[in-house]
Amino acid sequence: MANEFLNIVGTLNEAQKILVVGHIMPDGDDISSVLSLFLGLKSLGKQVVAAIDWKIPSYFFEIEEVKYIKNYEEIDVYDFNPDIIVILDASSPDRVGRFSDVLNDFKVIVIDHHATNTYFGDINWVDSTYAATAQMVLRVNKELQVEYDERLSLINLMGIETDTGFFRYSNANERVFRDVASLISLGAKPDFIARMILENRRLEQFKLLSRMIDNLKLECDGKLAYSYLSKKDYEEFNCTDEDSGGFVGEIRSIKGVEVAIFFYEYVKGEVHISFRSKEWFDVSKVAFTLGGGGHPRAAGVTLNGNLEEIVRDVVKLTKANFDLKS
Amino acid sequence: MANEFLNIVGTLNEAQKILVVGHIMPDGDDISSVLSLFLGLKSLGKQVVAAIDWKIPSYFFEIEEVKYIKNYEEIDVYDFNPDIIVILDASSPDRVGRFSDVLNDFKVIVIDHHATNTYFGDINWVDSTYAATAQMVLRVNKELQVEYDERLSLINLMGIETDTGFFRYSNANERVFRDVASLISLGAKPDFIARMILENRRLEQFKLLSRMIDNLKLECDGKLAYSYLSKKDYEEFNCTDEDSGGFVGEIRSIKGVEVAIFFYEYVKGEVHISFRSKEWFDVSKVAFTLGGGGHPRAAGVTLNGNLEEIVRDVVKLTKANFDLKS
Repeated sequence: MANEFLNIVGTLNEAQKILVVGHIMPDGDDISSVLSLFLGLKSLGKQVVAAIDWKIPSYFFEIEEVKYIKNYEEIDVYDFNPDIIVILDASSPDRVGRFSDVLNDFKVIVIDHHATNTYFGDINWVDSTYAATAQMVLRVNKELQVEYDERLSLINLMGIETDTGFFRYSNANERVFRDVASLISLGAKPDFIARMILENRRLEQFKLLSRMIDNLKLECDGKLAYSYLSKKDYEEFNCTDEDSGGFVGEIRSIKGVEVAIFFYEYVKGEVHISFRSKEWFDVSKVAFTLGGGGHPRAAGVTLNGNLEEIVRDVVKLTKANFDLKS
Repeated sequence: MANEFLNIVGTLNEAQKILVVGHIMPDGDDISSVLSLFLGLKSLGKQVVAAIDWKIPSYFFEIEEVKYIKNYEEIDVYDFNPDIIVILDASSPDRVGRFSDVLNDFKVIVIDHHATNTYFGDINWVDSTYAATAQMVLRVNKELQVEYDERLSLINLMGIETDTGFFRYSNANERVFRDVASLISLGAKPDFIARMILENRRLEQFKLLSRMIDNLKLECDGKLAYSYLSKKDYEEFNCTDEDSGGFVGEIRSIKGVEVAIFFYEYVKGEVHISFRSKEWFDVSKVAFTLGGGGHPRAAGVTLNGNLEEIVRDVVKLTKANFDLKS
């Protein structure tokens, strides 16, 4: 691993023209990683282009520098002809969208913290002990002796905060806190990112949350909690499925709940189901039975049919799995 | 300041019988501080009693050691006859409840991070640059060469997490992250505390939240948001005013909102009003006008009267203050 890291640092040190690419449906860690490496390499006098083949969610633009990230249409990779393409936070080629078409024609570096990475680059630094890819970029930048100012510190911090659920997930380990302390000493303000990401809910999102709570039900002596939203609910409050992104976590946060299920029908007749568990129930088993996938604590599946019937059947199936355990 | 710190460490080092006292209405930082100093001094072979003159909220008992904290009735201070009383996280004598009656008869150490501290002890270490009193206790314990195990690390961590709003407040500075990294290296798990405090809401609390959202209204082009709950709402969902503790923060988190107001009538005819602002509106001015108090970003007041009328009048008053600004 250390060799891959040093190999990447050496390669970037020598390169003059670099394309930094993020993944489709970019999250805070990806945007932070792309922008931090872009700004770091720029500050070393290199010719750098940052690009993501996806529309960046509007709330990220409170960080002004996000405007430097180009979309796929804005750049011609062959015309730019980079010495190296660096791909950040993407576990497989399909995650970079249309940029995957050009990867064979250039030297590719992959830096990622997903254990599922397929090692699709020429040099791959993959280390799932990192909570965020942004921490790996921080190491690269520091090794390249990039000078961190207040802006770069803040931008680099964003990925660490968002990928650790603002330090609430179990991946918030010692290195996370040391890295954040170091970025704060360089000028980053952690509360800025929290406000930007967490204090930006529209009133309609609250109304959607209220509807979800109204539909909330407990089963199995309070160990199973579930709720649902229909196409009609989303329409009524002028919301998209992005607005209900955190709802399954809200359901799981109820005292005594082991399994949370959230059903949502954003396209009529297409029901997405998110499962979460707290400590012991393997929700991936239920999801697999239904044709979906995931992990023991977080899984999901999409089913076609009538929302009400699907809720009834899936709750029944989950309850049966509870009975097997007890 | 350094002298007070060393003076305290020296005094504790020499003392054999020590009473550690927290404050009324104890929060996570206070319980963490009391228990961390209690366990630290115990481990050095001293005779220590920890006490708080208030009922400790039930969810803290997931930390088993909380049972060691005695209430006022359980101890006779004159009988125990401590060499020293250490008061933690309390800014004035009235904050320690009935223990305030005995302070004149013993040597008292005060350790606190509130800028408003009245220095009521014989030795006072007060430093508002600390985000949590638990960090000051960590320093005392380390200087006394207390050995930290997994339990003490976790217990000491709790105060830092809760008093920084789980690292979301602006007091989450470099020292906070360094202290947390150090406690994690000693065995603490930060996600445990987050789950204990944040994932323990009863279903009824959710239903109360839903009712609050249903009552939510925007004024001043979305810059002012307010909501309310009546005595009847609390009764309907079998909730107390503790269950609505975070609601004003939820209201403030709406995109574009500068001022949030939450009115709640837990005792009939007694309306508590919490004000919060994001960036520039001085809510303490409105609270002062009404006879209350607070800070520019957080203030409050209690008024007697009809809930509906009070909501109407206070919203009107706040709107008038908005007009003055724009």
